[in-house]
Amino acid sequence: MRILGIDPGLATMGYGIIDIIDHKPVLVKAGAVITTPNMRMFERLKKINDDVRNLLALYKPDDIAFEELFFARNVTTALNVGAARGSALCACAAYTDQIYEYTPMQIKQAVTSYGLADKHQVQQMVKLMLKLPDIIRPDDAADAVAAALTHFNSGHMKSQFLMK
Amino acid sequence: MRILGIDPGLATMGYGIIDIIDHKPVLVKAGAVITTPNMRMFERLKKINDDVRNLLALYKPDDIAFEELFFARNVTTALNVGAARGSALCACAAYTDQIYEYTPMQIKQAVTSYGLADKHQVQQMVKLMLKLPDIIRPDDAADAVAAALTHFNSGHMKSQFLMK
Repeated sequence: MRILGIDPGLATMGYGIIDIIDHKPVLVKAGAVITTPNMRMFERLKKINDDVRNLLALYKPDDIAFEELFFARNVTTALNVGAARGSALCACAAYTDQIYEYTPMQIKQAVTSYGLADKHQVQQMVKLMLKLPDIIRPDDAADAVAAALTHFNSGHMKSQFLMK
Repeated sequence: MRILGIDPGLATMGYGIIDIIDHKPVLVKAGAVITTPNMRMFERLKKINDDVRNLLALYKPDDIAFEELFFARNVTTALNVGAARGSALCACAAYTDQIYEYTPMQIKQAVTSYGLADKHQVQQMVKLMLKLPDIIRPDDAADAVAAALTHFNSGHMKSQFLMK
């Protein structure tokens, strides 16, 4: 069982891939797709779409777990972050229908047993759960791995987190 | 010269294709991609992406003109409408870099010479400019055709409307 976690964003889209081996999570890969404001908007979206397609082709995950976006500073930001999420989702939808979604609170709860944990606590727990020598950087990659770990933890309950 | 106009949206994404023949616009096709709330979010985005890809493959436009989104009722709506726009943009970005964008006010100004024209006036002017027997329906298809007509009208100035 292999899970791809995605923390969507326009400037930085985190991703993390874990394998479940003997009922334990093992980190396969974590990183981020970076796009910069000097790129044209559709070039940024194309890069996100292309890079997610490449990740799917290369790592062939069984399930995909998105961190749900429901906050943005304002409508303009939301339109752009939404577009980035849409680009990543399009790539995933062409690959599988096993797409799940977890709120930031569900992810914190699953990883630290505490829905209001801060970023630092989440990073430390991700490091412990995966027996890593160091925390995962950048933050968005750690968040993406946390989404994948949350999906692993949801186990038999996972169907209730299918993206609507 | 063939122009594809797009009025992005999640439930209804209007599109309109015009040819410029002897310096005059001629309607080739107008319609809308419809997705419904009973579809899962990523299925809706996939349909928008697939349908735009099909339009591009079938009609091979030279330039693409988007109506700019900059209004949404709230952040949640903006995230979803932004995702729909991102899905359409991804498909376009894989096809060309000749992607332009016009604000609703620029479109109204170009089509009716009046930036505050209402929907009905825009529809009537689109009908007149293209010598159609009737107005184009649905509204979003008429708006997409208006975006394409605006791009035609921008002529030698078009480079300043390249999407950033």
